[in-house]
Amino acid sequence: RTDSDRLWESLMELAQLGATAKGGVNRQALTDLERQGRDLFIQWCRAEGCTIRIDNIGNIFARREGSNPNAKTVMAGSHLDSQPTGGKYDGCFGVLSGLEVIRTLNQHNITTHSPIEVVAWTNEEGCRFPPCMMGSGVFTGELEFDAMMARTDADGVTVSDALDAIHYRGSDSVSPSEIKAYFEPHIEQGPILEDTDTTIGVVIGGLGQKWFDLTLTGLEAHAGPTPMNLRRDAMMGAAEVTQALNRIAHEHQPHGRGTVGCMTLHPGSRNVIPGQVKMTLDMRHWEPEALITMGQAVAEAVEEICQRHGLEYELTPTADFAPEYFNKECVNAVRQGAEKLGLSHMDIISGAGHDAMFVGRVAPAAMIFIPCKDGISHNEIESATPEHVHAGCNVLLHAMLDAAGL
Amino acid sequence: RTDSDRLWESLMELAQLGATAKGGVNRQALTDLERQGRDLFIQWCRAEGCTIRIDNIGNIFARREGSNPNAKTVMAGSHLDSQPTGGKYDGCFGVLSGLEVIRTLNQHNITTHSPIEVVAWTNEEGCRFPPCMMGSGVFTGELEFDAMMARTDADGVTVSDALDAIHYRGSDSVSPSEIKAYFEPHIEQGPILEDTDTTIGVVIGGLGQKWFDLTLTGLEAHAGPTPMNLRRDAMMGAAEVTQALNRIAHEHQPHGRGTVGCMTLHPGSRNVIPGQVKMTLDMRHWEPEALITMGQAVAEAVEEICQRHGLEYELTPTADFAPEYFNKECVNAVRQGAEKLGLSHMDIISGAGHDAMFVGRVAPAAMIFIPCKDGISHNEIESATPEHVHAGCNVLLHAMLDAAGL
Ligand SMILES: NC(=O)NCCC(=O)O
Ligand SMILES: NC(=O)NCCC(=O)O
Repeated sequence: RTDSDRLWESLMELAQLGATAKGGVNRQALTDLERQGRDLFIQWCRAEGCTIRIDNIGNIFARREGSNPNAKTVMAGSHLDSQPTGGKYDGCFGVLSGLEVIRTLNQHNITTHSPIEVVAWTNEEGCRFPPCMMGSGVFTGELEFDAMMARTDADGVTVSDALDAIHYRGSDSVSPSEIKAYFEPHIEQGPILEDTDTTIGVVIGGLGQKWFDLTLTGLEAHAGPTPMNLRRDAMMGAAEVTQALNRIAHEHQPHGRGTVGCMTLHPGSRNVIPGQVKMTLDMRHWEPEALITMGQAVAEAVEEICQRHGLEYELTPTADFAPEYFNKECVNAVRQGAEKLGLSHMDIISGAGHDAMFVGRVAPAAMIFIPCKDGISHNEIESATPEHVHAGCNVLLHAMLDAAGL
Repeated sequence: RTDSDRLWESLMELAQLGATAKGGVNRQALTDLERQGRDLFIQWCRAEGCTIRIDNIGNIFARREGSNPNAKTVMAGSHLDSQPTGGKYDGCFGVLSGLEVIRTLNQHNITTHSPIEVVAWTNEEGCRFPPCMMGSGVFTGELEFDAMMARTDADGVTVSDALDAIHYRGSDSVSPSEIKAYFEPHIEQGPILEDTDTTIGVVIGGLGQKWFDLTLTGLEAHAGPTPMNLRRDAMMGAAEVTQALNRIAHEHQPHGRGTVGCMTLHPGSRNVIPGQVKMTLDMRHWEPEALITMGQAVAEAVEEICQRHGLEYELTPTADFAPEYFNKECVNAVRQGAEKLGLSHMDIISGAGHDAMFVGRVAPAAMIFIPCKDGISHNEIESATPEHVHAGCNVLLHAMLDAAGL
């Protein structure tokens, strides 16, 4: 068994970095606060005798050797970056559970056959620099290194410059072919486990995603003298696109999702018809064809709406991932871990993107979910219980030992 | 006749203060740039021998004495502040036409019976500090001085502090009872004069206005795992309110207007369902009852939409003006001026709010419109021809002489 208190204390210590007034965390990717999180994680890993590798996009790998130096590695991990109004558990629970497994093995002097490795992936959230899961995407070859280096945040800072600014551009080359199995513990970030009073979600895969940036351009004009029928009101277009995205998601239930998270009006004056609106679209589904259909339906809706309102538009894809179905053996290892520990469990689909979904394309992978309060995540009030955190970490220990061998 | 070149040169010189790359002006109320505009205007007026008065909200009155010191004053004016992406003519054309009348009278050594006075009203645009027409509103008693002093911009700066920062809190008391007649030249800011190839708009009145700030509060949550039917998406509410406002305006044609000019999403992350949206609503109509009906319909729509989406809301009025019908004699003076000058003219209703609409409630008032290119205003590309500017100023001269007597 892992040490419940030790894991909880580390979680709470890490949550100090970027702690918000409402009990959440604002530690966005490649900021100085996130650098502090990375430094702390490395310090803890070194204290456990791990060797550290950092690759070209700043992913951090902490390795505990096994008895067979040539064996592939059994890996666990997640991410240290947060949303602007994020919680304490999203990401950190996975990284620190991996560390807790190593601490437990050290404490009990257990030598595994395969090495054990914990990874903290760069920029999983994607909110500062889209797309999400950037670090694991580059690592697995799903995302192109040069293109990702050129991605910018809202202030025009590139990933490349931000990475250099925190001194986390590494030179170690780490290959997906080294991985025997990858496990990622995470809070569910949805309501299902809590609703069904289940402790462990055995994650069988995750929704595919399509993200877009949309700019609608009309003509800014005075809100008073400009007759309704002569307007080219970009905000009217934005309102209708928001509704269309929502309608399309509702037409693809139970797995369809559609969200407008960002919107900026230009010039943003209360008595001026907005001449330009910039907005983001986030679409998700479990079936590859349904996701494609949704993407096409939204593109058609945008075209029709803009034509009707006399608007020009630019619709730019910023993320596009097919749904991921996890490796059966890894999924089984998670299910058996929960069973051996006598924990209630159910199969579940992840609505969020996770690094495991990219890793799963190049190596056997699976995930372990635990409930979070009211299913709320990407919110400062995100919350999980010490019992569930402990349970998830114990399932990880079992699954990793199962894969690594003694 | 007034001097066309002199007026045009002053207009262009003033437009340098806050000039934008696209040929417009950003000189928002009570900023340092607007202070520079005020200083320049006062310098020009002093050069013409005018005495200057500044009242408690920073309205500037420049007076040229008449032969009868006890006669009421004949006033012209408008405003020097602009939209963030405003044009060169909105406001300045009216103020500088008044100055040009004084320059012309001086040049020709003409003494009027009544004094002639030019006024620059504070914060007509209302975009930085709502509501619009704040200076004339306080002057006429339509708006309460203390309440206006406490109004804040988006950064929380009060009108009171901003006024002190530019040193334009005056101590002169100027009374509406001093005014015999008030005339305000302005660009139309709409397409009607241009469409009908008419030089002068004889403004018979202006649309009433209702402005609101609306805050919609739902629950921010993750865009992926949160099922569509469990969301409290504030952005869905904002989209529907935008459409409802538009629909209600369309149901009240030809005079109804409805505009959402500002919208801010919280937290504003592409993979987070917005937990809160703040937005502005601008509604207008020519008939008092129709404006009231529109306001009620929007309030009902907000209530219904919020209930359906599980949102809380706060709907705060920030401006509320009844339609204004101008004084018949002043309107006639404008019409006759255009006729005497052989200029094409038509009666017209102002869609924009103007200081004349407040002044008209306490003294005889009217307005003179000239065309602007494509009817576009509140836009950096706002444009008017020297010929139309000159024509409008000449009509002002005639109307003022008619009211002031020789
Ligand atoms: N797990 C998580 O919050 N990932 C962020 C990427 C996403 O939007 O799914
Ligand atoms: N004339 C003008 O642009 N006034 C601003 C106030 C309004 O929105 O009508």
